[in-house]
Amino acid sequence: MLRNWARLWWGLPYFVTPRNGALLQRFSHKLQEHSTASMLISEKSIDWGVPNPSWSQEMMLQFNRYMEMTKDGSWQKLPSYQSLSDHLREGSRKEELQNRKSRLFLRSIDEEGKGFEYAMFLRPSEKRVVAVFQIGPYLEGPSGFAHGGAIATILDSTVGASVISVSRRVVTANLSINYKSPVELGSVVLVDTRVDKIEDRKIFASGEVRSVDGQTLHAEATSLFIELLPRSLSQKETDSSSSP
Amino acid sequence: MLRNWARLWWGLPYFVTPRNGALLQRFSHKLQEHSTASMLISEKSIDWGVPNPSWSQEMMLQFNRYMEMTKDGSWQKLPSYQSLSDHLREGSRKEELQNRKSRLFLRSIDEEGKGFEYAMFLRPSEKRVVAVFQIGPYLEGPSGFAHGGAIATILDSTVGASVISVSRRVVTANLSINYKSPVELGSVVLVDTRVDKIEDRKIFASGEVRSVDGQTLHAEATSLFIELLPRSLSQKETDSSSSP
Repeated sequence: MLRNWARLWWGLPYFVTPRNGALLQRFSHKLQEHSTASMLISEKSIDWGVPNPSWSQEMMLQFNRYMEMTKDGSWQKLPSYQSLSDHLREGSRKEELQNRKSRLFLRSIDEEGKGFEYAMFLRPSEKRVVAVFQIGPYLEGPSGFAHGGAIATILDSTVGASVISVSRRVVTANLSINYKSPVELGSVVLVDTRVDKIEDRKIFASGEVRSVDGQTLHAEATSLFIELLPRSLSQKETDSSSSP
Repeated sequence: MLRNWARLWWGLPYFVTPRNGALLQRFSHKLQEHSTASMLISEKSIDWGVPNPSWSQEMMLQFNRYMEMTKDGSWQKLPSYQSLSDHLREGSRKEELQNRKSRLFLRSIDEEGKGFEYAMFLRPSEKRVVAVFQIGPYLEGPSGFAHGGAIATILDSTVGASVISVSRRVVTANLSINYKSPVELGSVVLVDTRVDKIEDRKIFASGEVRSVDGQTLHAEATSLFIELLPRSLSQKETDSSSSP
């Protein structure tokens, strides 16, 4: 599992990103349990996938619900950084990325609560990732509702995180989304995603965006990812380290 | 055509958004030609779809190329605002939207050049919209490349703009994207989109993201939009005003 975690620390820069140093302390004991993973990041890296004052009561409720489920180890909270450089130890590669001053798309908006507020949780035994998202007012498309591209972004990111749980280096080859019901700005939604099938280097995955009570299906997606490394190599790693 | 323009001013808030007051002056004569459209927005609204110092030489080259093609009226530059309230005249509805302090997703990042820099051009006779996009460093997914969600966002927005040229109130029902080749951060791409077919309230549209030399296909999308108003009503408007 530690190796899976390590892979997630490296892999997630592809999809997620960071926030609040003070609040992080509340959860840092959980991260410290994973010493291998901790070695892979700078001490200065800040996980932004933790509560901040912009989080609504509903957002806190959902976050706490999933944090509770991490206690028996069946679920794991995935950290979320602002840039790829946060995922690296000190060194020339880290400096190179820092100089580029790029940011991961989901963490591109500075002001707390204006863009994507979220936390992701992995259930390795099911190759499943659930994300709790609060949709900020800077993500508008139709009046009062989230942009179709913002919904595509949260789906691609969360589905991608579930795929990374089985293979480290992947790219999205296809993403198909059915939009069922618009997502109101300010609302909290659950994005439930999983790996469905693996065929050589093709990884088929899918996901849904639902209201927190599960009653409203906002959007559903199917996705195809392609593994950049030969399957044989990363399969070996998965086989030897996937059980929690 | 004026009515089409008017519809675009109202419709585009769904997909696009603003920037530089000083530079706007250089192109404002074009906007003034469309007096009906001008009436529909506040004098304070700023079109952000115009050059700013972050635009690369390539971005300027492509922008000027399409601006040149607007001279004979076959192409029109579409304005791009930061929020829906920019699209309204003074009044209670405008105030209501201003108080909400929301922003259109494509204009959610404050710093020039960090997010989406773009301008859109409509060719009404072909129900086609071409957008020139410069991909900023805050849109990162895989190291050095745009996030799949950012590509989905520029496709949904530009395809949506072409759909709005035939029907005012639409929502995305499906968006399917094939990712062919990653888009490097900092690069300029052309997003070429069009309405393919209309069946009652269903509008089928598609688009491509290509390198400026046309040689590299980065992504292609098909999309289904649903018209919120009865087709009969908006078809009448189109029939009476679609010729340039």
